[in-house]
Amino acid sequence: MTTDDKIGSYDFVAEPFHVDLMGRLTLGVLGNHLLNCASFHAKDRGFGIATLNANHYTWVLSRLVVEMEKFPAEYENFRIETWVENVYRLFTDRNFRICGSGGEPLGYARSIWAMIGMEDRKPIDLLHVNEGRIMDYVCDRPCPIDKPSRIKLATPQLRHTHKVVYSDIDINGHTNSIRYIEHILDLFDLRMYREMSIKRFEIAYVAESYYGDTLDFFTEETGDNAYNVEIRKNGGGEVVCRGHISFR
Amino acid sequence: MTTDDKIGSYDFVAEPFHVDLMGRLTLGVLGNHLLNCASFHAKDRGFGIATLNANHYTWVLSRLVVEMEKFPAEYENFRIETWVENVYRLFTDRNFRICGSGGEPLGYARSIWAMIGMEDRKPIDLLHVNEGRIMDYVCDRPCPIDKPSRIKLATPQLRHTHKVVYSDIDINGHTNSIRYIEHILDLFDLRMYREMSIKRFEIAYVAESYYGDTLDFFTEETGDNAYNVEIRKNGGGEVVCRGHISFR
Repeated sequence: MTTDDKIGSYDFVAEPFHVDLMGRLTLGVLGNHLLNCASFHAKDRGFGIATLNANHYTWVLSRLVVEMEKFPAEYENFRIETWVENVYRLFTDRNFRICGSGGEPLGYARSIWAMIGMEDRKPIDLLHVNEGRIMDYVCDRPCPIDKPSRIKLATPQLRHTHKVVYSDIDINGHTNSIRYIEHILDLFDLRMYREMSIKRFEIAYVAESYYGDTLDFFTEETGDNAYNVEIRKNGGGEVVCRGHISFR
Repeated sequence: MTTDDKIGSYDFVAEPFHVDLMGRLTLGVLGNHLLNCASFHAKDRGFGIATLNANHYTWVLSRLVVEMEKFPAEYENFRIETWVENVYRLFTDRNFRICGSGGEPLGYARSIWAMIGMEDRKPIDLLHVNEGRIMDYVCDRPCPIDKPSRIKLATPQLRHTHKVVYSDIDINGHTNSIRYIEHILDLFDLRMYREMSIKRFEIAYVAESYYGDTLDFFTEETGDNAYNVEIRKNGGGEVVCRGHISFR
């Protein structure tokens, strides 16, 4: 198999309702496209959700990191390329490159996925699914951004509380992965987005939340225009997500 | 010009993060697709935003009505067709048909648009833009749903208050038209969506809102599983939107 066969490539355009006040594609929409590309790429190689579901397995997103030099502008054509970097027993690393209309790299992303049983929610050994065929797709294309970091808040400040609503909920009855990203972005003043641009965004999905749950959003400044974020649910200590955002 | 030339037709698939807990395409995403189709169709006929902006004009959405027999399901292919029904001096009526993967109609939508000057925000006489060429695209295909109604709340009940955040704001600095739809849907209990499906949704855009504005959402039950909605801003009487939603 050549490297080209291992890399999936998908074309998009930045739609008017998908850009923010500065005319930049929003990170929520970009995240949605990344996850869809992961899904298309896996499906075309026999590891799609539908195939897995028939075996009562499913993919679970554990981490997502996006680092952008420049976001696609309104009406701009852009391309997302995705490939599998590593496969371990319980996790796989999938990377992405986002390219502008001229083919120039705008940014990169990294994601970590686990496969679980749909009934028992227990992890599945990836090296034994489909006779380990996922290993055939491992590709050594470089992804020049740092791996996910370990996010820990020393002195978290409560910034916002949100009750999970209808629009947050996906077909599995959980708050959907993209909505957490949007809610985190909404913690920051519009001025940040007007004067700066998101440089790096990380999110680690720790536990699920459900309709009616109360989500408390905590932040901690970690440097110049850089923040750690933690989402806890129902007034207790249970962490739902941890994140990090930095602006340039 | 034949009827076929007058009707724009665009294909979509219901993506996983674009369906709700019941696996139905969300109305917000459908609304986004409808507005994009309006934009594609107008652009291809010389009435797109870019062309208008060069003349310092722009389109403004005044009303949107969607009536669905059935929503596209997760991963389902569907098609949106759009055409211009009427052109008046200050408004134009644009209709839509949403079809399932087999071509069967799933629902219809109606929209009303005005054209305004970008600087003075004053209405433009549509019959005189581009020598009235928009009239060439008027099409008599039927749209078998009721026209927008006049929405008035006799005894409005305050249901929710929302402060406008980053994710609400579009490139013009206004709360985007789709976000109002999502916020209205979020007024209703998840049970409504689990046990029923949206039959008809109407929204009339009355005034703009901006970052930091406080939006008060009022509802009034108008019949079995049918509600009028009014959004007012900043604790005063200024109405931003009026809407109506009914479930079946």
